[in-house]
Amino acid sequence: MEILRSREAVRRWTAGHHAAGRTVALVPTMGFLHRAHTDLMRAAAAQADVVIASIFVNPTQFGPDEDFARYPRDEAGDLEKAKGAGCAAVFLPTVAEMYPAGAATRVHVDTLSTHLCGGSRPVFFDGICTVVAKLFNIVGCDVAVFGEKDFQQLAIIRRMVRDLDLPVRVVGHPLVREADGLAMSSRNAYLSAEQRQDALALSQALAEADGRFRDGERDPDVLRALLKRRIAAVDSMTLDYAELVDLEQLQPVRGPLEGPVLAAVAVDLQGTRLIDNTVLGRAG
Amino acid sequence: MEILRSREAVRRWTAGHHAAGRTVALVPTMGFLHRAHTDLMRAAAAQADVVIASIFVNPTQFGPDEDFARYPRDEAGDLEKAKGAGCAAVFLPTVAEMYPAGAATRVHVDTLSTHLCGGSRPVFFDGICTVVAKLFNIVGCDVAVFGEKDFQQLAIIRRMVRDLDLPVRVVGHPLVREADGLAMSSRNAYLSAEQRQDALALSQALAEADGRFRDGERDPDVLRALLKRRIAAVDSMTLDYAELVDLEQLQPVRGPLEGPVLAAVAVDLQGTRLIDNTVLGRAG
Repeated sequence: MEILRSREAVRRWTAGHHAAGRTVALVPTMGFLHRAHTDLMRAAAAQADVVIASIFVNPTQFGPDEDFARYPRDEAGDLEKAKGAGCAAVFLPTVAEMYPAGAATRVHVDTLSTHLCGGSRPVFFDGICTVVAKLFNIVGCDVAVFGEKDFQQLAIIRRMVRDLDLPVRVVGHPLVREADGLAMSSRNAYLSAEQRQDALALSQALAEADGRFRDGERDPDVLRALLKRRIAAVDSMTLDYAELVDLEQLQPVRGPLEGPVLAAVAVDLQGTRLIDNTVLGRAG
Repeated sequence: MEILRSREAVRRWTAGHHAAGRTVALVPTMGFLHRAHTDLMRAAAAQADVVIASIFVNPTQFGPDEDFARYPRDEAGDLEKAKGAGCAAVFLPTVAEMYPAGAATRVHVDTLSTHLCGGSRPVFFDGICTVVAKLFNIVGCDVAVFGEKDFQQLAIIRRMVRDLDLPVRVVGHPLVREADGLAMSSRNAYLSAEQRQDALALSQALAEADGRFRDGERDPDVLRALLKRRIAAVDSMTLDYAELVDLEQLQPVRGPLEGPVLAAVAVDLQGTRLIDNTVLGRAG
């Protein structure tokens, strides 16, 4: 597995594969890899001839009071996991490599970015769009794979790719859970044993809403109230949002529900941000 | 010369040339072509194996009170001129082809965009950056050529290309003047004979400032005052700006002047926006 640290090295790497007729898939990550990431890498291998992962904790998507500095990092462990998952290369740029002095450009997606995670994190999606556009342009990938845990991020990136005519096919991959239901996240590393137990309320609340939907409940306000009640019952959690939104524009839906909708929740658990979501009534 | 109207047709066109080992240069225009445009196309031919021009009056860079609807258009004449200038293809998309329903993404460049033309035209540079990023991604060009008449636009596009790692080399080409000094512009078509005579004040004021600079004047405020005085002397003109700025960040400079600086002016001439600029003391 090749370890690439400069944009120039990545361009040459891709050019070599393209010259040989091979397609390239990118899996962008912030590192501290876990099974949800390695699942994305394995899924990417089914989409292209070679897979490159990027590992970059992107400062521009963190607000001033957020956890950029303490975000967990483990380069040696990440390289081992990426290699085990079949990556042909890993791109590990520094902040200075990605944002040289004078950088002044950002990519903004309206409407989709202003609520849910964008409501409490105003710079978040501009930071993500800008870094993802950069990564697509640096790597020159044919396809990129993103997890549906960040469902809003995936919808915004799809929108950006269409709107800017970026020549990249975007593929979503289902959220991956621990055996007990907790959505996998690098931020789970922040949790104490007790907090980790409390965190299960998110996946349990979503599973309960899904069950109610399957049993015929079609009033989104009833389902929203259920989610909020389950979260409010956990003393250590502060609700950010618990919403039911459509799958395209991610706008709050009104009843009675007809097609599939996304139930999405975000909380602060004593300083750790946790998000989770599920498409109500989706098979599997 | 091929006439391409869909993004898909352009992608195929470029893919064919790239597969044959030929490089592609793009000259983005808003049409109503004149010699400054055909000069760009000829300059582009020196930069790549084949040249494609785009002709698109981009609605997102016009404010609500600006001249989008009446901006001059002449498709038949443009095609003839592009062919005469050696273009291998022209891309002529509709607004719906470039901005399908739901488009919600824009590219913004800070600092460089907020003054000069950006001061009086708040959506202007976001519109330009977004459409240029799209054109680069659609065409997949290796190089793109822009005129220095829109000096600020060129600086902003260079910044965007660096910041988003767009794999395109940007080349600037000197401003082209009529025999009497008037900077060539599609908007000159709006001018009556009398207005056209008045418009010469811009190039004359810049030439006078350049002469004073060559004679040793190093106080930018003296040169700014000269430009403003010459423009104020023309009853039909309303000043937007007359500035001396550095060549990189386009920020107003203080004296005493040392290196080369850009003198840039913009006026409203009875409803027609005119801009002009010159690099003080530059040879040629």
